[in-house]
Amino acid sequence: MKKFINDPADVVTEALAGLAAAHPDLRVDTAEQYVARADAPRPGKVALVSGGGSGHEPLHGGFVGAGMLDAACPGEVFTSPVPDQILAATKAVDGGAGVVHVVKNYTGDVMNFQLAAELAADEGIAVETVLVDDDVAVENSTWTAGRRGTGATLLVEKIAGALAEEGGKLGEVAAIGREVNAASASFAYALTAGTTPAAGRPGFELPDDEIEAGVGIHGEPGRRRERLRPARELVRSALDVILEAQPLDRGERVIVLVNGLGGTPLIELYLIYGEVATVLAERGVEISRRLVGNYVTSLDMAGMSITVTRVTDEMIRLWDAPVRTPGLRWGA
Amino acid sequence: MKKFINDPADVVTEALAGLAAAHPDLRVDTAEQYVARADAPRPGKVALVSGGGSGHEPLHGGFVGAGMLDAACPGEVFTSPVPDQILAATKAVDGGAGVVHVVKNYTGDVMNFQLAAELAADEGIAVETVLVDDDVAVENSTWTAGRRGTGATLLVEKIAGALAEEGGKLGEVAAIGREVNAASASFAYALTAGTTPAAGRPGFELPDDEIEAGVGIHGEPGRRRERLRPARELVRSALDVILEAQPLDRGERVIVLVNGLGGTPLIELYLIYGEVATVLAERGVEISRRLVGNYVTSLDMAGMSITVTRVTDEMIRLWDAPVRTPGLRWGA
Repeated sequence: MKKFINDPADVVTEALAGLAAAHPDLRVDTAEQYVARADAPRPGKVALVSGGGSGHEPLHGGFVGAGMLDAACPGEVFTSPVPDQILAATKAVDGGAGVVHVVKNYTGDVMNFQLAAELAADEGIAVETVLVDDDVAVENSTWTAGRRGTGATLLVEKIAGALAEEGGKLGEVAAIGREVNAASASFAYALTAGTTPAAGRPGFELPDDEIEAGVGIHGEPGRRRERLRPARELVRSALDVILEAQPLDRGERVIVLVNGLGGTPLIELYLIYGEVATVLAERGVEISRRLVGNYVTSLDMAGMSITVTRVTDEMIRLWDAPVRTPGLRWGA
Repeated sequence: MKKFINDPADVVTEALAGLAAAHPDLRVDTAEQYVARADAPRPGKVALVSGGGSGHEPLHGGFVGAGMLDAACPGEVFTSPVPDQILAATKAVDGGAGVVHVVKNYTGDVMNFQLAAELAADEGIAVETVLVDDDVAVENSTWTAGRRGTGATLLVEKIAGALAEEGGKLGEVAAIGREVNAASASFAYALTAGTTPAAGRPGFELPDDEIEAGVGIHGEPGRRRERLRPARELVRSALDVILEAQPLDRGERVIVLVNGLGGTPLIELYLIYGEVATVLAERGVEISRRLVGNYVTSLDMAGMSITVTRVTDEMIRLWDAPVRTPGLRWGA
């Protein structure tokens, strides 16, 4: 294994120290292991807290800041954060208006966020949970009952975060987060596996001419292994799956995320976006907004995912609202 | 080779089509092969034009927009843009106040930008050239007489671009670009080589426990191959080289860029930034601003570079000015 690390056991802690040094407008609690806005808690504002295993950066720590998350709880690499950690973050950012937990649908994450929510309730903090399960490649998976949560997490955090920033109430913020998730579908391909610092070798092996279609962001198996095909064919196949799960009529509007899984160069992601735009144009679907880059990654996995979210005027308005985080920033 | 492409010969053209589809505020001329601000030319504004081989995205096309470049000329992967292409871009964005060419120091780039500048002069366009040669790993290299141009290109484009945006004159914009370059030093490590679509295999081979110290952004050899060491030791060695080339007194201020070369996960880049911050704090150097991410890449190379730029109040002010490009955006 070749990585820029010291001891594999210290990767998450040391990366958090770097994040803290790089972003003075974040507050990193290295003891409790969470990242919060430096100005949290904001009295009267609904707070958003997310988290999950590390290795998906910039998700979630890189999405903490004005207009998005109030706090993020990074677990060890590909490992759920623990309930005490989530509780500490929840208490740290609660401004009295309640807290929304944004939880990707993995069994450990769901269980630990639920425990934390119950503990928070015991302390008088109202918590609503938004479960993200947008990955339509498979039902159930290695660490998941039901669909996995992947790229749509970014959209949920951005759009619900914007509503919270402008004064939305707890129920409203949770509701729009759930709407965004319900309106989203994602599908990913892997060309290679990522390598965790602890394991020191790729999570799976793929022959030189094969890809994993429907891979998860921890390297979970997808639908099948298949021969590598030209990008335009892969994009068509992915969109067939996405649009079967989430049918779109002509004239409907979407936000598209073409997301790199960490080891795929941006030049390929733009090429893929061009193919996505071509296919959706043929189907009469209007891409209102789009994002191309590495946002929900799987360490150094060469791969990409496509997320399509059917949007309303209100979602577009909230998408366009200012956001100021390390990983996503505009209008501020 | 596993890549998300169609025909290797079409990668740059198709990625440009995707860039155009993704960013309506850019104008992509696919015939002449350049990317320009949609609102160019802006009468009376000094225009900035850069370019170079593709494969370093978001550099340069991703840095076109308000507050940074007016146009970028992407060559084929790792191949210089041609003079006609540079001339076309220069003419397209000239607003009558002259054009600054930002050129990374590679022989082909230098020659082709020079030819284009002469052709532009024949047509009555005043061109100043800012040569970027910040990579202090080696004097002369595979495709370079003198030092190579790498990470400092981003700082030159951002800071000179901000001055042009606020009405700086041709000589002033070029002068501050040269000052930023002169105040910058960079050093890179590779863990693996990148793979160009045309070659289909990594540009060089490294044993499982070796790294290339001082690697170039096209995989050019550096100072030596050495055993992989802990990140904190690599950072110290890199900063020793950087600070020998660019001595800094206690109390001096810098902008630091910790840049991924494409295949290195963000979690490692933040860990590295933490080490950089520690070493510079020991030396009494103040990091006024910093940037951590994949900005000047080498396709899917696992690796990173560190750039340190000694800055003045004026440079910090221009760094903080609004920028709105696909690859760098704040305050707008």
